Amino acid sequence: MNNHDKHKALITTVPFGQYNNYPIELLEVNNIKYDINPLGRRLKADELAEMISEYSILIAGTEQITKDVLNNAPKLKLISRVGIGLDSVDLLIAKKNGVIVSYTPDAPAPAVGELTIGLMLSTLRHIHISNMMVHKEIWQRYSGFRLSELTVGIIGVGRIGSKVIRHLQGFGCKKILVNDINDDVVLPDFANVEFALKEKIYREADIITLHLPLTSDTINLITKDEIACMKNNAVLINTSRGGIINEGDLAEALSSNIIYAAAVDTFIEEPYSGPLIGLENCLLTAHMGSMTADCRASMEIQATEEVVRFVNNAALTGVVPDSEFFNQKEI
Amino acid sequence: MNNHDKHKALITTVPFGQYNNYPIELLEVNNIKYDINPLGRRLKADELAEMISEYSILIAGTEQITKDVLNNAPKLKLISRVGIGLDSVDLLIAKKNGVIVSYTPDAPAPAVGELTIGLMLSTLRHIHISNMMVHKEIWQRYSGFRLSELTVGIIGVGRIGSKVIRHLQGFGCKKILVNDINDDVVLPDFANVEFALKEKIYREADIITLHLPLTSDTINLITKDEIACMKNNAVLINTSRGGIINEGDLAEALSSNIIYAAAVDTFIEEPYSGPLIGLENCLLTAHMGSMTADCRASMEIQATEEVVRFVNNAALTGVVPDSEFFNQKEI
Repeated sequence: MNNHDKHKALITTVPFGQYNNYPIELLEVNNIKYDINPLGRRLKADELAEMISEYSILIAGTEQITKDVLNNAPKLKLISRVGIGLDSVDLLIAKKNGVIVSYTPDAPAPAVGELTIGLMLSTLRHIHISNMMVHKEIWQRYSGFRLSELTVGIIGVGRIGSKVIRHLQGFGCKKILVNDINDDVVLPDFANVEFALKEKIYREADIITLHLPLTSDTINLITKDEIACMKNNAVLINTSRGGIINEGDLAEALSSNIIYAAAVDTFIEEPYSGPLIGLENCLLTAHMGSMTADCRASMEIQATEEVVRFVNNAALTGVVPDSEFFNQKEI
Repeated sequence: MNNHDKHKALITTVPFGQYNNYPIELLEVNNIKYDINPLGRRLKADELAEMISEYSILIAGTEQITKDVLNNAPKLKLISRVGIGLDSVDLLIAKKNGVIVSYTPDAPAPAVGELTIGLMLSTLRHIHISNMMVHKEIWQRYSGFRLSELTVGIIGVGRIGSKVIRHLQGFGCKKILVNDINDDVVLPDFANVEFALKEKIYREADIITLHLPLTSDTINLITKDEIACMKNNAVLINTSRGGIINEGDLAEALSSNIIYAAAVDTFIEEPYSGPLIGLENCLLTAHMGSMTADCRASMEIQATEEVVRFVNNAALTGVVPDSEFFNQKEI
């Protein structure tokens, strides 16, 4: 039995190999046996726990990889996450069980950055609402706001936040107030970018967008208390992770017009079915931050290449750094 | 009877003074009598013809100011257009009847430029479609394309087209192919911008956006023949004027997937009710290009200031240049 026969991969992320077949080819060329998520949607922890026992490799999406899952995976040696967020993986138990966790943190950033600007412009100009109305033959001209005239607040200036700042340079926003959870953040060198305390961002920004991981420090970062400090015309954008904004508090604020609007792409439970549904001033999308042909392909290819390296005993390049473990300890 | 008593203004554009009261104040401070469009929507030519006889000044929107209208307006001396397009005004009859026509061509451009990028991102990422689905609790992750990866074609690089090019610099698009109806166009000096024949744009661009006036040269610029040359994944954006893209041909192309998608903000007849309705791959908005608080206020204020200058016998600053008359002669 050679090294390849020892291994079998379960691919849970959805979609996989749909827009670019190369990841599948990589597995086949390298004789790595694999199965693809038979349910075609994000698995629940108990579904994954039931499926995982015979696999040594998991090519994972954002499903919960809990202690239970990991303790039902006696053969598991590698989790290769297609994407960046690690809030779904119990990293400490993985380490304890001797499971290596890798990820592809750079690949999704360009697609998430562009979606964020798209959500800002849709929300500011009511594009999605007007589209529904005109298709119903109801003609109403909504008035909105211009990005260039606004103060934008960005919390999180890592891979994605800095791309958002770059895109905004083409609009010449008045002011971009920036904060991060890391103290040693390096601000991009643009004239309109300045560091600000979160409290100042809540008070002064017209649009606030979050580009943070979900960790013990960021869960419920924005609740009704923070929303209460915001301008009446504030727009909140979340393309990072559900749970950073308290969903119930946001729904309440939007339904009583405490802020102007929100756009949310990520939720605590996905598929989403919660109190934001039905609120016209809440633009909702189906966790599509990374969903462009090019970024999705990079993510799937990078995650699969890591699997190939692992099976071939080559040096891994995407192993999750210790700082991510630290973030997670109390979530 | 002083000069002000001689004048009475009809304001047909909708909305007017809604987001900023200053235009109304300007009229009142200057003792200029006025009436506001009682129907609250774009007037039809016969409705306007019936209303206009007693007015010397028209503060106009995009309604048709036809020969009939003008010949029913014996007292009319000034048309002050809130906006840029003049396709709605019979300029030659106006001149013949001694009616001055002014406009505010710079004011709407910033808002139209931003809407154009919003429509591009919505269309490329299915933001408006995902929003409808998630609000119905249907979870589907649409895959899209990234602006940065695409070749953008821009036809028309005047006030609005150049703003679109500027916004796109924040995304670093691969290539921006540019054409205009004027031969002496000056291209913005960016490394990714190059002049191209329209035929090359139709063949090579992934997104094509139009920023042209509706004239005898541009009506039906894009029909089924031009669409047939486009890429199968092409996206067409029109925030300029209805009629430049043949609406019937576009509807046919979209319903048979000859191109990927379109976003249309302007129509031959508005309110729109035509064959584009109901096509999921056609994003429709209600002529909202200029509809931001700041640009709408500038347009209304500038158009009203021109009225004040006229009534006070001051030099006018927004009179339509002869080149616009030339454009119109055969439409």
